[in-house]
Amino acid sequence: MTLKIALAQTNFLVGNIAANVDNIIKAANYARDELGADIIVFPELTITGYPAEDLLLRIDFIIEANNAVYQLADCIAGIAVVVGFPEREGNKLYNSAVVLHQGVKLACYRKQALPNYGVFDEQRYFTAGDRSCVFEFNGTFIGLTICEDVWKSGIIDATKQAGAELLLTINASPFNSGKIHQREAIVCQQVKAAQIPLVYVNQIGGQDELIFDGASFVVDAQGRVVFRAEEFKEQISVVEFDGGNPVAHDLASLYSEISSEYQALVLGIKDYVRKNGFKGAILGLSGGIDSALVLALAVDALGPDKVEAVLMPSRYTQDMSNEDAVLEAKALGVKYHIIPIEPAVNAFTGMLAEAFAGTAKDTTEENIQARCRGVILMALSNKQGKLLLTTGNKSEMSVGYATLYGDMAGGFAPIKDVPKLLVYQLANYRNTLSAVIPERVITRPPSAELARDQIDEDSLPPYDVLDPILERYVELDQSAEEIIAAGFRREDVARAISLVDRNEYKRRQSPPGVRITSRAFGRDRRYPITSGYRGIS
Amino acid sequence: MTLKIALAQTNFLVGNIAANVDNIIKAANYARDELGADIIVFPELTITGYPAEDLLLRIDFIIEANNAVYQLADCIAGIAVVVGFPEREGNKLYNSAVVLHQGVKLACYRKQALPNYGVFDEQRYFTAGDRSCVFEFNGTFIGLTICEDVWKSGIIDATKQAGAELLLTINASPFNSGKIHQREAIVCQQVKAAQIPLVYVNQIGGQDELIFDGASFVVDAQGRVVFRAEEFKEQISVVEFDGGNPVAHDLASLYSEISSEYQALVLGIKDYVRKNGFKGAILGLSGGIDSALVLALAVDALGPDKVEAVLMPSRYTQDMSNEDAVLEAKALGVKYHIIPIEPAVNAFTGMLAEAFAGTAKDTTEENIQARCRGVILMALSNKQGKLLLTTGNKSEMSVGYATLYGDMAGGFAPIKDVPKLLVYQLANYRNTLSAVIPERVITRPPSAELARDQIDEDSLPPYDVLDPILERYVELDQSAEEIIAAGFRREDVARAISLVDRNEYKRRQSPPGVRITSRAFGRDRRYPITSGYRGIS
Repeated sequence: MTLKIALAQTNFLVGNIAANVDNIIKAANYARDELGADIIVFPELTITGYPAEDLLLRIDFIIEANNAVYQLADCIAGIAVVVGFPEREGNKLYNSAVVLHQGVKLACYRKQALPNYGVFDEQRYFTAGDRSCVFEFNGTFIGLTICEDVWKSGIIDATKQAGAELLLTINASPFNSGKIHQREAIVCQQVKAAQIPLVYVNQIGGQDELIFDGASFVVDAQGRVVFRAEEFKEQISVVEFDGGNPVAHDLASLYSEISSEYQALVLGIKDYVRKNGFKGAILGLSGGIDSALVLALAVDALGPDKVEAVLMPSRYTQDMSNEDAVLEAKALGVKYHIIPIEPAVNAFTGMLAEAFAGTAKDTTEENIQARCRGVILMALSNKQGKLLLTTGNKSEMSVGYATLYGDMAGGFAPIKDVPKLLVYQLANYRNTLSAVIPERVITRPPSAELARDQIDEDSLPPYDVLDPILERYVELDQSAEEIIAAGFRREDVARAISLVDRNEYKRRQSPPGVRITSRAFGRDRRYPITSGYRGIS
Repeated sequence: MTLKIALAQTNFLVGNIAANVDNIIKAANYARDELGADIIVFPELTITGYPAEDLLLRIDFIIEANNAVYQLADCIAGIAVVVGFPEREGNKLYNSAVVLHQGVKLACYRKQALPNYGVFDEQRYFTAGDRSCVFEFNGTFIGLTICEDVWKSGIIDATKQAGAELLLTINASPFNSGKIHQREAIVCQQVKAAQIPLVYVNQIGGQDELIFDGASFVVDAQGRVVFRAEEFKEQISVVEFDGGNPVAHDLASLYSEISSEYQALVLGIKDYVRKNGFKGAILGLSGGIDSALVLALAVDALGPDKVEAVLMPSRYTQDMSNEDAVLEAKALGVKYHIIPIEPAVNAFTGMLAEAFAGTAKDTTEENIQARCRGVILMALSNKQGKLLLTTGNKSEMSVGYATLYGDMAGGFAPIKDVPKLLVYQLANYRNTLSAVIPERVITRPPSAELARDQIDEDSLPPYDVLDPILERYVELDQSAEEIIAAGFRREDVARAISLVDRNEYKRRQSPPGVRITSRAFGRDRRYPITSGYRGIS
């Protein structure tokens, strides 16, 4: 028996059940009529979107989602549909996959492995299922699994033992750099051991801090990837199976690591703006590398007519910064304003003169400059309904080298999970597509330009020392002694770690941004602000 | 056999293992020498503090905590000690209670019920234990349980079945309004059913958004509370047991609801300032009820010499606002500044004139005023190392009636979980202790004073309508239809709910504050920003 299975790599909106149902119906009709598919498989929790977080605690929301499944069953004919939904039974909730065909539920599977680490909180919402699920369709016995199930050993085996000849896996597997290789390697290894072909459908799209990269795939019983959908694109593809074995051989090639990181950032901006209904984006353009990269990302995500740049020079801004910022805006074809901040800085200096009498200048005066820029940018954002993008990178977020309500002001922080060295690599990568970032911006020493002749290295270890220390401490949870043993100087490690420890309060108030590493700040790294822990003494 | 058990209701710092160990030793020696205790019982996860959040994912931290237990065993003699710690075995972590006596581990219990709802993420870190634990001490058979264990049915029974005559329960049970009654009722009911006396030791203190209220207690086998320690105070008390039965009868009386709420807020400010090493606190004083209450709370927490108020009038500030703000500062004996914001507002107006040419006035101009105040307050905070307290209440946080980086700027938001109507009740309550808030501040209609003759009711339903709707929607997860059915007007419900839905992005960037309701914003209510969910259409 041959069977045509459509992989629906969709980008749905969390929480919008009615729209998601409409999109499921459209996609199913398309797969049936245009692709001749017998079955169409959607991503995990299709109906609610993933992750719906505490919406899943609302009874009204859950009832609507469960009703939607019945509605779907009535609306689709001539094709079987596999969709994910939060299944309610009594006062329990399951993360389930249901097979609908000709108006009836053919099968329903409850996810057994519920991830509760990293960005995942599934045990907050769901009860784990306790059994395999296999259904017969046109003579083929098909097993169902959901995401984490196929990362754990045992569940694929048990499903095969229960009679499955072919596995369908629905997923919401978030991107991070290198994740696609890890994902395919683990699934292929499991499939090879169990000798059962597997269809892996992943969602795509940005959802707050998470990016889902798609790259759905099919593995044959020998553990070889024989089909792969594109990364970072919505796509409905069809794969033919004969007696449970895939006969298609259509492999989208994988992007390079730097290219996939760039595309993840672009998709993150695009979906945050689109899904939240902003009219476009604005950002402060300083002439530095961070804002240059964010501008390029924003234009690639939204188009030049939706993006606006603001230059806000002060007495400490070098001429080359202004020149380069103008060059960037012109190269990308965006509208820009120039609004010097001196009048506001002077006003605040005067207003605070009495209270500050007799005190020495310190970072307070630097922060005032950054906050004047924040006020200007937020005013432009408020007036126009455009999203303010902040331009801080992960290295700065880690050590608190940023001003709360100043350069940290904004609705979305595209590169908050991009370490400084990667900022340079991404800038260089973007310039290989078309030259938009002046070379001088990439080569000059980075500076916040909040004091005369200031450069970042006055306050921080050089980034080629700082970034690897931060990766070890923040992403890998290594101890100070382990990092020192790996060859870093004790004083650099001590400085970096103590800054990370002390700046949790700033990160707690930072806007969301795109997660591209294996551990971002935010839901992924939940540290107390009030803490006596010191990573190094 | 008689047995003297000390209840160590302690306030330890999360993450500071070395200091916590020192404090355990001091408390144990005190209980042995001054109270004649045979056993001293500390709260849950004593050694690390609770909740240590993702510090628990650091191997170095866990090793240090496990080593600390051995160290403790060596340092304490002549008294048995029950402490909580994150017990590591292989690559698993347990939330454990260990009994140390004369240098050896007498018993070790692993928590069986791991809460993973509300503010709790214990399944992120811990593996559940699977058995009861009973040890013999001076002829008495004592069972161990930990917090959530005694909220679930079955575990107390099983521990009694395993031979326990007396139960020790170590806890980190956070405060919310009315929680103490719920806590005692549930424990007493379970104890009465199982007919076994129970010692309940709770920690006290503020930890970021959580307040632990202490109020440790002892229940006899008939389910009667026969001893209760004070609420909101560190305290080491001793209770005598004869053949497992408590003979002491010393009951601290319970505070009224309003008094306990007030004390929770005071403790929250006090511990955030103290544990994070701030030199004091500052706040903007508007002449409105919210800042008046926060000022009183701050002074009660820190003393008048550690608190500073800033009046920042604009052209829209009424004279009575300035007069009342000065009266408040004087009544509480705090230093105050008066810094009119016109110079900065005028500067920004001029700087934005070109960009805003041809546009109509809207909330942008109101936000600029609020943000000028934010810049002033942050400058004073930065210069002096004093914590900036924001003064927004829960009603405002719910509907987004606040300016990001404006009145929302600050390190701690004491009343962010206090609905507006409760703000009034707390202000009246505080005035019964001593008159510090002018009557006019309580009786005049609330206003943000960001435009001429503005009052809150121009933009929002009256608070006696709004607050109950918000409680139902935010805290109880009721649907719009349920709320309407309870007697509220559809347009009020629709307005309130849609504002809550749309303002998650603001809340995500708000500072932490004291949780006093059964559901606060923050870790307690995890909503997506990007969401198509609309609670009402």
